[in-house]
Parts: sequence; C-alpha cells; structure tokens
Amino acid sequence: MKAKLSFGLIGFGFMGHSHADMITKLDYAELAAVCDINPDQLKFAPQGTATYADADDLLASEDVNTVIIAVPNHLHLDMVKKAAAAGKDIICEKPAAMDATQVQQMIDATRAANVRFTIHHQRRLDADLKMAKAAFESGELGDVYTVKSSLYGFNGNMHDWHVYPEYGGGMLYDWGVHLIDQILFMIPQRVIQVYADMRNVINKQVDDYFNILLRFEHGVAAQIELGTYFLCDQDGWFERHWFVAGNKACAYIDGFNPRGAVVTTSQLLENVPGKISMSFAGPTRSFGPPPEGRIISKPLPSAETSHRQFFDRYYGYVEGRNELFVKPDEILRLMRLIDTIRRSASEHRSLDFE
Amino acid sequence: MKAKLSFGLIGFGFMGHSHADMITKLDYAELAAVCDINPDQLKFAPQGTATYADADDLLASEDVNTVIIAVPNHLHLDMVKKAAAAGKDIICEKPAAMDATQVQQMIDATRAANVRFTIHHQRRLDADLKMAKAAFESGELGDVYTVKSSLYGFNGNMHDWHVYPEYGGGMLYDWGVHLIDQILFMIPQRVIQVYADMRNVINKQVDDYFNILLRFEHGVAAQIELGTYFLCDQDGWFERHWFVAGNKACAYIDGFNPRGAVVTTSQLLENVPGKISMSFAGPTRSFGPPPEGRIISKPLPSAETSHRQFFDRYYGYVEGRNELFVKPDEILRLMRLIDTIRRSASEHRSLDFE
Repeated sequence: MKAKLSFGLIGFGFMGHSHADMITKLDYAELAAVCDINPDQLKFAPQGTATYADADDLLASEDVNTVIIAVPNHLHLDMVKKAAAAGKDIICEKPAAMDATQVQQMIDATRAANVRFTIHHQRRLDADLKMAKAAFESGELGDVYTVKSSLYGFNGNMHDWHVYPEYGGGMLYDWGVHLIDQILFMIPQRVIQVYADMRNVINKQVDDYFNILLRFEHGVAAQIELGTYFLCDQDGWFERHWFVAGNKACAYIDGFNPRGAVVTTSQLLENVPGKISMSFAGPTRSFGPPPEGRIISKPLPSAETSHRQFFDRYYGYVEGRNELFVKPDEILRLMRLIDTIRRSASEHRSLDFE
Repeated sequence: MKAKLSFGLIGFGFMGHSHADMITKLDYAELAAVCDINPDQLKFAPQGTATYADADDLLASEDVNTVIIAVPNHLHLDMVKKAAAAGKDIICEKPAAMDATQVQQMIDATRAANVRFTIHHQRRLDADLKMAKAAFESGELGDVYTVKSSLYGFNGNMHDWHVYPEYGGGMLYDWGVHLIDQILFMIPQRVIQVYADMRNVINKQVDDYFNILLRFEHGVAAQIELGTYFLCDQDGWFERHWFVAGNKACAYIDGFNPRGAVVTTSQLLENVPGKISMSFAGPTRSFGPPPEGRIISKPLPSAETSHRQFFDRYYGYVEGRNELFVKPDEILRLMRLIDTIRRSASEHRSLDFE
C-alpha cells in the first residue's frame, strides 16, 4: 500500500465506475483491486488494478484496507458482514440495506469487528441542497413552515437491476434515500409523522412515483415528491426543485446546477379592507398579480461543493481530524424512516415516527 | 314581480355587490330588494331597488321570491332558516355554513319549507377547472394517478371579516371550499382518506396556508395547496395552477386566464440498460434534460365558460329544464370533508372519510 486509503471496489457497475474515477483524483487514495461477477465488466478496470471474480478473494488481499460496496442493494448486508469479518473498513453504496433490521445487523457486525462503516450519501454535497440548507438556516425566511423537495423525469424508468424488486429496485431505494437523507440532514428536529403515497406508474414491479409528507417536531413540514414520468414542457422542469417557505420570505432553488432566489415583499400587510381587484375567472382580492415593486428578489449564496468532499471527509475521519460525515445512527434512522414510508404508503394512512 | 326570478340580496358587501352586478345581466331576473345592517352600504344599492336594514323586512316583501345570502359565514344558518320560514327560495354564499351539522339543519329547514336551496359554487365554472377537468376526462393522459391544484398569493392576508374566526374567517372557508368543491366536481369517486396540514403563517387567528391530500377510491390522489404568502418571482406564480399526471401524459394549466398543454413523450421506454448521462451535481441516468424531440406538447381545448352560467342553470332548474347545478347532498358532503380536513390538521394524522 502506497496511499493511506487503499480501496477495493466490490461491484464494478455504474457506481463502481464512478468510484474508480473519483479515486484517481484523490492523492491520499489508490484503487488496489476491483471485483465483479461479470468478467466483461472487469475488462474496464484501470491498468495495474488487481481484478477478482469473487469478493472473497478481494477481501483476502492485504493490499486492500477499505472496501467500497457497489453491488445491487439486496447483497449489501452479506457483503458488509464479509468485509467486516475480513477486517476491512467499509464504505457502502446507498441504500444501506433493504430495511432497518438489516442496517442494525450491519452496525452490529462492523462494531464487533471494530471496522469503520459509512454509507455513500454524497448528495449531502449537492449544490442545490447546500443552497436550500443555507436559506433554511439563514433566518432570512423567518419561521420556516414548509420545505418542498422534488425531482421529475421524462423516461418513466429505472435502469439495469433497479427494475427488480428482489434486487432492491425502485425509486424510493434509488433516489428516495438521497432526497430523504438531504431533508434529515437539513432539518434537525425529530420526525413525528409520516404520510406517503407511492405508485407504480410505468413500472409494473417497482415504485416510480412517490409523494412523501414528513412532519417535524415544532411544526416544519417537508414534502418530497419524485416522478420518473412527470411531464411538463417548461424549461428546467426535469431537474431538482426546492421551495422553502417562511413567514418573512420564501426561497426557491431549481436545477442540479442551481439557480434561485430569496423572495420577499416590500411590505407585509395586516389587513386590506374593501379594495377590489378582478381576475378573469371572477372576483378575487387575495390573489392576482402583485403591484410593481412589491416582490423583492435577493440572490442566494453560491454553493461551492463537490462530491469529492465525501471522500475528503472520510479521509479526515480516518486521520482523526473530523467526525464521520455519514454516521451509523443516521443510516439506521434513515432506513427506519424509509421502512415507515413504505408502510404508510401500503396501509394508506399516516404513521407516527419519532 | 316582472321577471321570473325576483331577487332579494341579504348582505350587500363584496359578494353582494358582485351579485347585484350579475343580476343586471340576466333577462330572467331582477333585483327587487337589498338589505344590509350597515346603512352606508345601502347607499350603493341600484336605483329602484328597495332597501332594508333588517333581513326580516326584506323577507316579508312579496316582491322577493328568491334570496341570495351574502352575509358573513357564521350567519348563514340563521338566515337560511328565516328565509325558508318565509317561503323564499335560497341561493347562499359559500361556505354553506360553519360545519356539516349546520348544513344538515339547512337542508332539513329548506325541505320542510319546500323551498329551493343551493350554494353559490360559481367556481365550478372557472376556465382553469374546465380545462383541467377536460384533460382529466379525455383519456389522453392514460390512468391518472395524481391531480394537483394550487393557488399562491403575496399579501399574506384575508379581507374584512375573514380575519375573524368567529365570523367563519380563514382561507379554508374562503378559497378552500372552492378548491375542494372543484376537485369533488372533477373526480367522481369516493374520498377514502384525508390528510391535511393547515397553518397560521401571517394571520394569528385564522388559517392562511393549507396543504391537503385526498385519496380517492381506485387510487387517484388529489393535492390542494394554498398559500397567501407563498412567494416566488417567476411570471404567473400568483395564480391558479393545475397539474394532472397520468401514465401516458400529463396536463398543466396555469392562470385564471388559463394557458397550458397536454405533454407526452415521443416514446415510452421500458428499460434503458447502461446509458450514462452526467448531471452537474453528479451522475444520474434517470433525470436530466430530455433529448430533442422527446417531449411533445399538445394544446388543451379552450374553455368557454362564465360565472353567469351558475344563474342560467339555476333558472333552468326553476323552469324544470335541468337539474340543480349544486345539490344539497353535494353541499353536505363538501362540508363533511371540510370538517374532516380541519380535524386531520388539528390531530396531525390521516383520517378515513367515505
């Protein structure tokens, strides 16, 4: 081992490739080994990297001190147990596992083996989240009462094994865990209640639409909506969207490469007696276009961020310079919430959570 | 009485004026009398119209065969009972009453007196609803799974007596009953479940934000969101918005003077193995801009409609030419739903409905 972090990649599919690319950028890390059950995938392994068809052989290698597990979701638990038994530190892809019971087993196994354990929640470093979180925390919005996070697609679909429920497919496991993890990362209170609607719109077997309402202690509500076939012809629709509403201002953030603003009013009225404005469809005094100058937009801070920071922070944690970025108790809480969301959607009722 | 419908207006405030204007346009109707407890309001009564300070005097007039009740909400029940006892047909402003128990009393009183009874739900004739309903019913969207109806304002406020809870103030009673009535008018199934979040964002005493989820039998969900201080600087934000999503296409309708489209895709994929697109914030294959030509927009039918049709249909009903447009059982159902929404919001949990 030349570098401090010497990675073995277990699973060399879509995310495996992404990790291999990332590791080449990290001067404190090297990619020692790659493993995949599909020999065709191994042809793309970087030169000089050991390749294995069997994860047990990779785990036996002394050149690897840390594994990245990027196999389909239903295999995460077994692979984490094996890697822990082999004494390797572990970064596992999201979702951590199929349910909270499995996550608890992962935590138990990694604690017993005294190895490091985290989940690759790199979307805590997305620029859109960073801007939404900054607005949420700024105080500029006053008392925030609702946070809306949404993501819409046009192809109605999952990829590769994500179409199979037995592999842990579906959008709640795929993007859902990111969107929910971001909300939990942003809003520090307890989640007291969950209400969820989940659908198979295009896909027969796995969920491809969800609309989740979380109610936090002290009253903030979060709404998380994802549709893979949620169609509109407006610019920038097929992207991330945030809306954070408070009693002094609101913030919106749109796009993976985000733009947005904090929006407030030049005056906040307390009562408007008798002034009448007519809308096309009929009289309304409470709605309609604002007078010139009433709406004031302020820029959001730009967000310097990169997914690379996930690894930088992991390395800092290994070096004892900072805390672990994604902690086991957060991983367990998130998966308990995912389980509760699934149950709320299947039972068609709200459920208490924390 | 010269005209078939000879109206007495009880309450000559904002909606009273709106009704007086409407009546001048109807060749089958005349405005015989106006009543308001505030003598200043009566100065604006049209020439030749009898004016009264006391509703009992108006109700005693043989020149009136039909009353329009446009007093504050908490007075509707008493006024309906009085008008029924006086043998007058009744058109009452929305919300019908403060709760479903009161509506049942209204129905009992008007049935016992054998007078006509309806509620002025003229927003069943709004152009935006008409277009959304046409899209919903067209079959073009495939299986519709969610309908979103929303309305956003910038002034955070209610008007006149709408700021007082004891008068039946607040946005659920004001715009909420319209938005919910529109959804019930559009989606014919039973509402099996209700989940609601209601807030006092700016107003201390009455609700000025709500987010309501209704689940219908056979699976359609409806989401109704209204914010009176829900700020964005995008064009056309402070308006009505509809989004109707199905598994073959979606429709959006924006504005009181609505524009929108049915949006679909040139192909509906079933699986996309291994094709990779990179977004700024990180790799995603399921989201991002669509390729040229993939998104197809089709025009929505234009909607010729007018609030006047509420009265035309009422007159048709009196003449025996058509059914009553807004029926007592619909009014009772709507108010039972409003009661359930209020209870869901205050108990912070979903409630079964029908």
